[in-house]
Amino acid sequence: MDDANHAPGEGTGSEGRGRRARGGAEARRALRTKLNIEQLPYISRKIPLTTVLDEEGLVLMERNADIILEEIGIEFRDDEECLQLWRDAGADVKGTRVHFPKGLPRSIIQKSAPREYIQHARNPDRNVKIGGDATVFAPVYGPPFIRTLDEGRRYATIEDFRNFVKMTYMTPALHHSGGTVCEPVDLPVNKRHLDMVYSHMKLSDKPFMGSVTHPSRAQDTVEMAKILFGEDFIQKNTVITSLINANSPMVWDGTMLGALKVYARNNQGCIVSPFILAGAMSPVTVAGTLAQVLAEVLAGAATAQLVRPGAPVIFGVFASSISMQSGAPTFGTPEPSLVSLAAAQLARRLGLPFRTGGCLCASKVPDAQAAYESSQTILTSLLAGTNFVLHAAGWLEGGLVSSYEKFVMDADQLGMMQVLAKGIDLSENGQALDAIREVGPGSHYLGCAHTQANFENAFYRSTIADNNSYEQWLAEGEQDAYKRANGIYKRLLREFEAPPLDPGIDEALLAFVNQRKAAEPDSNV
Amino acid sequence: MDDANHAPGEGTGSEGRGRRARGGAEARRALRTKLNIEQLPYISRKIPLTTVLDEEGLVLMERNADIILEEIGIEFRDDEECLQLWRDAGADVKGTRVHFPKGLPRSIIQKSAPREYIQHARNPDRNVKIGGDATVFAPVYGPPFIRTLDEGRRYATIEDFRNFVKMTYMTPALHHSGGTVCEPVDLPVNKRHLDMVYSHMKLSDKPFMGSVTHPSRAQDTVEMAKILFGEDFIQKNTVITSLINANSPMVWDGTMLGALKVYARNNQGCIVSPFILAGAMSPVTVAGTLAQVLAEVLAGAATAQLVRPGAPVIFGVFASSISMQSGAPTFGTPEPSLVSLAAAQLARRLGLPFRTGGCLCASKVPDAQAAYESSQTILTSLLAGTNFVLHAAGWLEGGLVSSYEKFVMDADQLGMMQVLAKGIDLSENGQALDAIREVGPGSHYLGCAHTQANFENAFYRSTIADNNSYEQWLAEGEQDAYKRANGIYKRLLREFEAPPLDPGIDEALLAFVNQRKAAEPDSNV
Repeated sequence: MDDANHAPGEGTGSEGRGRRARGGAEARRALRTKLNIEQLPYISRKIPLTTVLDEEGLVLMERNADIILEEIGIEFRDDEECLQLWRDAGADVKGTRVHFPKGLPRSIIQKSAPREYIQHARNPDRNVKIGGDATVFAPVYGPPFIRTLDEGRRYATIEDFRNFVKMTYMTPALHHSGGTVCEPVDLPVNKRHLDMVYSHMKLSDKPFMGSVTHPSRAQDTVEMAKILFGEDFIQKNTVITSLINANSPMVWDGTMLGALKVYARNNQGCIVSPFILAGAMSPVTVAGTLAQVLAEVLAGAATAQLVRPGAPVIFGVFASSISMQSGAPTFGTPEPSLVSLAAAQLARRLGLPFRTGGCLCASKVPDAQAAYESSQTILTSLLAGTNFVLHAAGWLEGGLVSSYEKFVMDADQLGMMQVLAKGIDLSENGQALDAIREVGPGSHYLGCAHTQANFENAFYRSTIADNNSYEQWLAEGEQDAYKRANGIYKRLLREFEAPPLDPGIDEALLAFVNQRKAAEPDSNV
Repeated sequence: MDDANHAPGEGTGSEGRGRRARGGAEARRALRTKLNIEQLPYISRKIPLTTVLDEEGLVLMERNADIILEEIGIEFRDDEECLQLWRDAGADVKGTRVHFPKGLPRSIIQKSAPREYIQHARNPDRNVKIGGDATVFAPVYGPPFIRTLDEGRRYATIEDFRNFVKMTYMTPALHHSGGTVCEPVDLPVNKRHLDMVYSHMKLSDKPFMGSVTHPSRAQDTVEMAKILFGEDFIQKNTVITSLINANSPMVWDGTMLGALKVYARNNQGCIVSPFILAGAMSPVTVAGTLAQVLAEVLAGAATAQLVRPGAPVIFGVFASSISMQSGAPTFGTPEPSLVSLAAAQLARRLGLPFRTGGCLCASKVPDAQAAYESSQTILTSLLAGTNFVLHAAGWLEGGLVSSYEKFVMDADQLGMMQVLAKGIDLSENGQALDAIREVGPGSHYLGCAHTQANFENAFYRSTIADNNSYEQWLAEGEQDAYKRANGIYKRLLREFEAPPLDPGIDEALLAFVNQRKAAEPDSNV
């Protein structure tokens, strides 16, 4: 696809547009000699939504969530302030258990939570809309290990972290730099967030996520964003979207609530997201899981609105099942797909942006299992109308591993999803009646004028697939996708050039990082 | 999934039902000791359809197809009878070119073609409904080569053919035995259809496809079906569904028309199917391809109705693009997905069952590329509401290769599609409110009563995925999916037991085969 042909999405700024305007012979020459890193704007979906529940089913799920919220209640642990917020809002608080009058969390959310919002990037061309018909892809989040074909599996380092930020920056269909692209376990737990946030700010100009492992680390993220964007700007605009996981079933804990409060107070976005391995953290059934997820999101998202009405919140769900043989999480199976598709419908009815999915898999290596599982998950995510897709590239082994090779394989799938979402071009050129007239029965379209005029951009060009003849594939060493991906990720890293950053801002960021590092001893808690 | 819990689909007979009724402790014991080959009935889709075109777009495609049919016309080559049928029906025939008055093919089809039909199997439990909310999966069709991990790639033989029929018989979510599961190139071209059809009849009790490479071979298929089902039965019922490919663009040739006429006259089903590599056999655009495909199907399906009003016809399309770099077909990319999704909508408006998709891929080996491509194609096929899915298991290397290992990988995906299509169980048990009440906040569902009662059947169990711990996977030799699949297909073949066939019928079939083989010399044309 010719990326320059993509209409810029709503909400993107106008600066830097010139960079996308290259075209014609010059662009084609550039394509032959170096990687095409013309970025794609976030997806504006033009195709209808895929759904799985009818009105009756949706109402039933909402009724069951209300029963859970009122009868069973939700725990808010180690956070007296949140309990007080709920007392003041009219909930029945017994110890750490909050019971919600029917409809209260929903009405709080619908009163103030935005249906969609812009997350600003330091390059306004990379701003993303979160909500509505938009889909934003962000890379894998959280793995303590990495895997490469050369090294196998080992603990991740800050060098790996930087590499995944670089590769994300160079991937057109990753619209978002993500957050913990891998866990840099070579750095102390209480300080690594500083290097992580700095890497996103320095090595990429795409929007990013903040630290959530301690309220003070969330605050550090906000402070660094103030340096990057200006203090005024971030109070009026959202520049961070962070992942706040529920401790399912039905618990919001102090760490997550602490981070949520920091971001909400500063008008920054939170993905309020039950982390579900169905059969362990939720019932073994899809409908049971849905009701619990909805209840947990209602409680968490409404809490953000109590902290600051209007703070952006996303209805999130990480949907997996557990293997009833091994107890391990499974991915790419039909039950999590049904959870995602139905939860997307529930989110739209609630009026919140929705997060699920990614290129999830359980496989230990980027083999056929990994790809089947990932493909099932990412296509479902897109068709469901998911607005924010975390783990969209690089996820391996149930999220324990960030894989370099799988990253570039998944990135290729994301490019395909972007084209699929555009739907069918019904223009005169798209209809191609003149070509059909020109060619006529029994001939072929290979050389006709319409094909000549369109062939460069007609079909999505896979970056990873081998479509050559068998003989050529043999001659090139019978490489499978894993081997080819190895070469591709290395080329990405070789050709990486950091986007320019104002030296004064860079200096101020580094000064903040160093000051915070010096302020306390290293700790692995 | 507990296959015994699946409701038998409409249109399945009542005989042999007892075989499915095993349950409880006995069934669980059996599961532990041997492969579970409890068959699944064809899919009765309970989830909404995924669509890509609105009313305006659909009307535009129909208008363009009408323009093609009237202005450009369709070639009917080497078949004077078909030209005369069209003259008699009111078309404008010039030489071999038929120009159709606006709306004529559509009105012919809508007057007599069934919206759905039952294809009978020799075991009535394996009857399939083709059309409506039904989806039927059939294996790969056509490859001259096979590939195994042990042997690599080589020409296919009749032994391979039998193996794929056996594996299909043993695969619960393959509802149909298919046709040319591979091309037995060790047998003479003019006689191999006899061994192929006999293999389907003898080694399986699922419905099958017939020969189309010559009208006389189609007739042989019909004659053998008469022996198997009885002559009366096949005149009143459809027992064969065969693949009639258009010679796109806009040509129906004598061989295919000859086979189509044989099957239609005998009330047997035909998939009327443009074989499209967009950019070569159709315009490089999706909308151009759609209009041409619709025109070709309208002409072909209406021809079958002229031959015998009421003969079952399926609106087929094989959708691929060509790589504009290598000229080779590409699969699993977004453009063919859009063609499939929109063509399904056009087929429903026309009132015909629809065929597309499968587990298609271009990859040379069953690696990540193969799986990404296959998964994208099969999920799209299901969500589109495709009624007959050919190539649903075993397809490799753009259809040049039938892969043993990929067959069992794909079969696993089909099992997942079958579960996905059932949608969400909203029963009391599915809602699981009592489980949520029992477990409560901060605990887990692993041991609760509801989990205990449901865990055996709660989640789809992959036959190919490794969901064990990393350590266990290491201990078991770090096998990827390709290696695991190698063991699985061998076990299938080891445990195969042919379904019983009346010895008198078997003898008569063999007598027919031998008589036909003796009637002419071997030939490779």
